[in-house]
Amino acid sequence: MTAPNLPLPGGDLGLFTDLYELTMSQAFLRQGMSAAATFSLFTRTYPPNRAYFVSAGLEDVLDYLSNLNFSGRAIDYLRATGIFSDDFLEYLRGVRFTGSVRAIPEGRLYFTDEPAVEITAPLIEAQLVETFIINQVNLQSMLATKAARCVWAAQGRGIADFASRRTQGTDAALKMARASYIAGFSSTSNVLAASLYGMPPAGTMAHSFISSFPSELEAFRAYAESFPDRTVLLVDTYDTITGTWNAVRVAKEMETDGQKLMAVRLDSGDFDELSRKVRKILDDSGLDYVKILASGGLDEYELETLVKNGAPIDLFGVGTKAGVSADAPWSDMAYKLVCFDGRPVMKLSPDKVSLPGAKQVFRTKDSGGMFAKDIIALDNEDLPGGLPLLEEVMKDGKRTGPPAKLEEVRNRFQEDFAALDERFKVLNNPPRFPVGISGKLERLTAEVREEVLGINVSDSD
Amino acid sequence: MTAPNLPLPGGDLGLFTDLYELTMSQAFLRQGMSAAATFSLFTRTYPPNRAYFVSAGLEDVLDYLSNLNFSGRAIDYLRATGIFSDDFLEYLRGVRFTGSVRAIPEGRLYFTDEPAVEITAPLIEAQLVETFIINQVNLQSMLATKAARCVWAAQGRGIADFASRRTQGTDAALKMARASYIAGFSSTSNVLAASLYGMPPAGTMAHSFISSFPSELEAFRAYAESFPDRTVLLVDTYDTITGTWNAVRVAKEMETDGQKLMAVRLDSGDFDELSRKVRKILDDSGLDYVKILASGGLDEYELETLVKNGAPIDLFGVGTKAGVSADAPWSDMAYKLVCFDGRPVMKLSPDKVSLPGAKQVFRTKDSGGMFAKDIIALDNEDLPGGLPLLEEVMKDGKRTGPPAKLEEVRNRFQEDFAALDERFKVLNNPPRFPVGISGKLERLTAEVREEVLGINVSDSD
Repeated sequence: MTAPNLPLPGGDLGLFTDLYELTMSQAFLRQGMSAAATFSLFTRTYPPNRAYFVSAGLEDVLDYLSNLNFSGRAIDYLRATGIFSDDFLEYLRGVRFTGSVRAIPEGRLYFTDEPAVEITAPLIEAQLVETFIINQVNLQSMLATKAARCVWAAQGRGIADFASRRTQGTDAALKMARASYIAGFSSTSNVLAASLYGMPPAGTMAHSFISSFPSELEAFRAYAESFPDRTVLLVDTYDTITGTWNAVRVAKEMETDGQKLMAVRLDSGDFDELSRKVRKILDDSGLDYVKILASGGLDEYELETLVKNGAPIDLFGVGTKAGVSADAPWSDMAYKLVCFDGRPVMKLSPDKVSLPGAKQVFRTKDSGGMFAKDIIALDNEDLPGGLPLLEEVMKDGKRTGPPAKLEEVRNRFQEDFAALDERFKVLNNPPRFPVGISGKLERLTAEVREEVLGINVSDSD
Repeated sequence: MTAPNLPLPGGDLGLFTDLYELTMSQAFLRQGMSAAATFSLFTRTYPPNRAYFVSAGLEDVLDYLSNLNFSGRAIDYLRATGIFSDDFLEYLRGVRFTGSVRAIPEGRLYFTDEPAVEITAPLIEAQLVETFIINQVNLQSMLATKAARCVWAAQGRGIADFASRRTQGTDAALKMARASYIAGFSSTSNVLAASLYGMPPAGTMAHSFISSFPSELEAFRAYAESFPDRTVLLVDTYDTITGTWNAVRVAKEMETDGQKLMAVRLDSGDFDELSRKVRKILDDSGLDYVKILASGGLDEYELETLVKNGAPIDLFGVGTKAGVSADAPWSDMAYKLVCFDGRPVMKLSPDKVSLPGAKQVFRTKDSGGMFAKDIIALDNEDLPGGLPLLEEVMKDGKRTGPPAKLEEVRNRFQEDFAALDERFKVLNNPPRFPVGISGKLERLTAEVREEVLGINVSDSD
């Protein structure tokens, strides 16, 4: 009963979890702790050079929650570990997610400490799902954020996702395709992702294509023959300039058949210098319609430099460094219990303090429609003039609406990104976007802290 | 017909590929290019601070090749893109991998430029599989290498994989569990990985467990009641020292029932200082049998410092930074055509030159049994005294033997790692292990370069 898009082998969604989710759950069951719990998913600090996050991953979370189960095989495995009691295993066999989810929709921007997702469910159900939820939202938000930085740096030039071969696994490849499309990439090289998500696939030829022919020229001709409408010639296998002249020759041959060479692709060397030389060769040959695509080692920092210097590159293929978010390959996203059985809770571990209670985030705009400030509040507060960001997307274990359409998510991102001041988008050391805490939440935090300290921390330290 | 362990949704292994593998294949088909091709998978340069790689990922490659197919749904999707010809789509419908694979077995150490895998198959089959093969071997070797660094730094103390929540996706979580076990980790928190790979699962409780109870003490007691034989108490939710005193109290209560507290876990703060204080409290309380586990933000650099300073930590839980190989989240692993239809080939792109021809790697040892030097040679060479590293693991599309047993792979790693001089294992700026090229390969490279330049590069640049 695995949902078709869920990236797990064997169909056992329940088992994709940390062992401690299961051992804790057994102890909860034994203690009869079945009351409702709320967990908040949020990121404590910004990775280097980040001042915003792009929400992504919620669709997989909802698919997962809708299909959560432990198969007979899973129960047999757990029994064989010798760790679990029979009554707990029987409980697990019937477990489904029956709770509710409030979340910031995919495509929206959010900031540190703001809950991207809040889960409210019977304690065990809310606990069991932690591992998968962090794994997916952390990855997808991180990749969408990285992609947004690339799109911003490219200043309107198109970008294709070429990352699949170097992402950290197959799941990451699919998620990179989707997340980068949300943030404005135009296409992906990954055919499975294109088919699953309804995105445009992109790609033409590798060096092996060239070298499998006796000469580059023969390879170019063979490709143009197969794809007269969508030929992009890779010109750097032996020498970029000679390759460009071969491409010119083939483009002229195509013209005599009424066809047009679409582009040439640079994949190594100094892109700034080479793109100017290649552009001149193409233009001098009357091929001003042939575009230049560059790929290989590109990230937002490289894109910014090339674009600022005016390198005549029309399209970028972005791979490895974006696909692993190389300059910030992880974030400290956490999933923390904030309320149990009506009692707001928090932890006090050094540098890991959490805010108690179920929450809402209110976004305010200035008179020009630009984001002014966010306020993190309690979920039952109403802040006049603020737009509440968290929406109820699941209730009693069922989605409250149809799955989000990818194009809508992409539009939502564009809308939000346009309303974020440019100073928060700069690639290096952006300032922090102002996020405040409501008076009520501040008071609750102080109260809970005092109570928790009184019960759990002796004065004798 | 997806193999149960393959990490892909929808069962369409064929579609997990870059679009250009398919467009090139159509052009190959049109040109009647069906002769055998050999592709080499190798890494050009070391990521920062690396001087060796641990082979991992081959099992998934062989599973994938054994099950490669394009379903009716996949063909329908490809037809709908409008990119492909009917005859090519019919060809794809019947395509299977019928070639052979020679590879360095999982667990073995290898070095830059050495082919970890060589695929020989009809050109299209060998081309189509590129994306998946790079994706998996790159990821798994990278994670196994990162884990080997952690194991080396821990100097015999146990390490558990706690990375699942922060790996880049679900596939990476499973592969991290397996790769880190190959390199000597003792267990994983990921229950699905433990069940798929037959590894020990590990884990006990999160902060949410503590905070869902009215007090830490009650939480500790509830856990000990459920798991008297395997209780590890997380002591930092509110204050590590107070938490330790609560753990002592529960340990004493357990003793009166004839039970023993297994360990306490530190998850924040200064591990060096806290572990000494906690050790003293435990020892002064007659609890010298209670172990100390530390987790949170650890990587090989932190482990080395803690171990060198003698922090009394018995076990480490290693997560995020190892699970994404944070200091080196990608490598430039490439899959290059080296021979087609009996003709050795190479590319000359700047910084991306490849060595032509199918290859073998010979490893020589010194009189003490330690690795002395590797020689990359042609596959038909025989270097007396050298151990050939690449073994034939698939022939005519069938595995030549049963799947590798994980324990055997783990043993193979230990054997190889013990034979690598310590100077190559240091965490910062290790020297390069000596890798040479045989005379025959050197001559072939010079010949092919000259021929390729003559055909493809004009003098007029």
